[in-house]
Amino acid sequence: MSRFQINILGCGSATPTARHNPSCQVIDFRDRLFMVDCGEGAQVQMRKMKMKFSRLGHIFISHMHGDHCFGLPGLLSTLSLHEKTGELTVHMPQEGVDVFSRIIEFFCRESTYDIKISPLDPKGGVIFEDHAITVESFPLYHRVPCMGFIFREKPKLRHLRGDMVKYFNIPVSQLHGIKEGNDFVKPDGTVIENARITTDADKAVSYAYCSDTLFDERVAEAVKGVDTIYHEATYDDDMLEQARQRGHSTARQAGAIARLAGARQLVIGHYSKRYITPDILVKQASEEFANVIAANEGLKIDLL
Amino acid sequence: MSRFQINILGCGSATPTARHNPSCQVIDFRDRLFMVDCGEGAQVQMRKMKMKFSRLGHIFISHMHGDHCFGLPGLLSTLSLHEKTGELTVHMPQEGVDVFSRIIEFFCRESTYDIKISPLDPKGGVIFEDHAITVESFPLYHRVPCMGFIFREKPKLRHLRGDMVKYFNIPVSQLHGIKEGNDFVKPDGTVIENARITTDADKAVSYAYCSDTLFDERVAEAVKGVDTIYHEATYDDDMLEQARQRGHSTARQAGAIARLAGARQLVIGHYSKRYITPDILVKQASEEFANVIAANEGLKIDLL
Repeated sequence: MSRFQINILGCGSATPTARHNPSCQVIDFRDRLFMVDCGEGAQVQMRKMKMKFSRLGHIFISHMHGDHCFGLPGLLSTLSLHEKTGELTVHMPQEGVDVFSRIIEFFCRESTYDIKISPLDPKGGVIFEDHAITVESFPLYHRVPCMGFIFREKPKLRHLRGDMVKYFNIPVSQLHGIKEGNDFVKPDGTVIENARITTDADKAVSYAYCSDTLFDERVAEAVKGVDTIYHEATYDDDMLEQARQRGHSTARQAGAIARLAGARQLVIGHYSKRYITPDILVKQASEEFANVIAANEGLKIDLL
Repeated sequence: MSRFQINILGCGSATPTARHNPSCQVIDFRDRLFMVDCGEGAQVQMRKMKMKFSRLGHIFISHMHGDHCFGLPGLLSTLSLHEKTGELTVHMPQEGVDVFSRIIEFFCRESTYDIKISPLDPKGGVIFEDHAITVESFPLYHRVPCMGFIFREKPKLRHLRGDMVKYFNIPVSQLHGIKEGNDFVKPDGTVIENARITTDADKAVSYAYCSDTLFDERVAEAVKGVDTIYHEATYDDDMLEQARQRGHSTARQAGAIARLAGARQLVIGHYSKRYITPDILVKQASEEFANVIAANEGLKIDLL
């Protein structure tokens, strides 16, 4: 069984506090780890949550504010002490490439693995792809250039019906095509429709990470049809104007994005430190969208 | 009453772990805070230990390994969010000035206070001084240029004996001189010795921070006569050769430095992550020097 799990390492905003770490999530996709944002303390959280450093291959940084990237130098150094080998790619907005190249050059001179920095195209697009998953970026609307990310499982194959394969005596050479949706054509020319010999494929699951952003319907457009959406919810209704001024969203606005995008579930986070608990934020998001999960450090959300 | 307190924010080595933060201490001297080293997570520890960010005026970085400085970008940014004003000086080896200037330039553009970087002279010397305290640096012997720091209270004034001041009818104008050690000369020319009219000044207290270093008798020489010495004690006796290769000391060697320097007490830290508790390190250091304190996160040591 495949596995697609969201791990919340940090869901506070601006600075680490006694309650929350700054932004960091790890997407565990079939035992490979993709990190999204890397606030200070990310490496300690990874260790606490028992995630293997060696499985981390890509880090995606949404924007160059410290609460989304100050954990990087420590994490990259620690990976070397754990004798990571191979390659790790850090995807980040062009603005940060120069300063992080300098940091890596200075502090990771004796690195045991290759660190690559890949600048994000501000227009967005596919930034990683293999046989099973695609990662896309898309623009968000914050005070500095900021990108969101969508993790999409690739479409899965249909399930063969064993009884039908046997009944029609379908040759092995044709099975893969049938799983992809082809009909079966018998040697005598009779067409057996695919629907008779297969059952539906499992649903391909997808996850969108909407980091710091104003409420903007273009975000809903970008994540349309995604199964689970994380959207920042820094403030409650009373702070609507402050949210706008600072390039952030309210919880209600996060709910509206999930509704407009037709999501199945919404995860909220990036809480302002003014909130002792996220209760008011969950309540207001829920008035727009039914299925709201409050992020919290240590939370694991299984999408599959 | 004056106050001179050592606060341990982190005493692990190499990487933050579930047990220890990387190196960081704060010297609280009459409510002004001096930070020594700034490993990742320093700002969270400061908050946990309820130390006021606004009181921090100087940060001293011993050397440019990540476990001694990766907390700086986050701390410097957070100070701005707390609307710190005035000035903060970061003292660090010349090697780090360029990369940290870039980091500060990039991430602290909108800083509410002035951040100065002051390069440390590798030969050592006085790097800060005011009416009450002096901070000196001195060379250590690690894999990269590394400096230790000594915090010295300035010599204090002798205490006047109220009864004698009255008895000899000493004019107010002469009291300060007498507190500094002058004799009192009566109008008739009779000399009253200082020892009759004063009692001894309180002892000026001093603290030396010996960050990552090989065992070297020049360190004992540099901290000779200091009241309390912190000395790294990364390893136990069985790791003597590894300590040497990696530019570190064993706990026994830390004890020997304290003994050679004639200290009153020794604080050990920078424990390798191989030690679940520092017991073996305390034991071995104690075989060289009687008064050993094991550093631990949250520990406060009152020197006055």
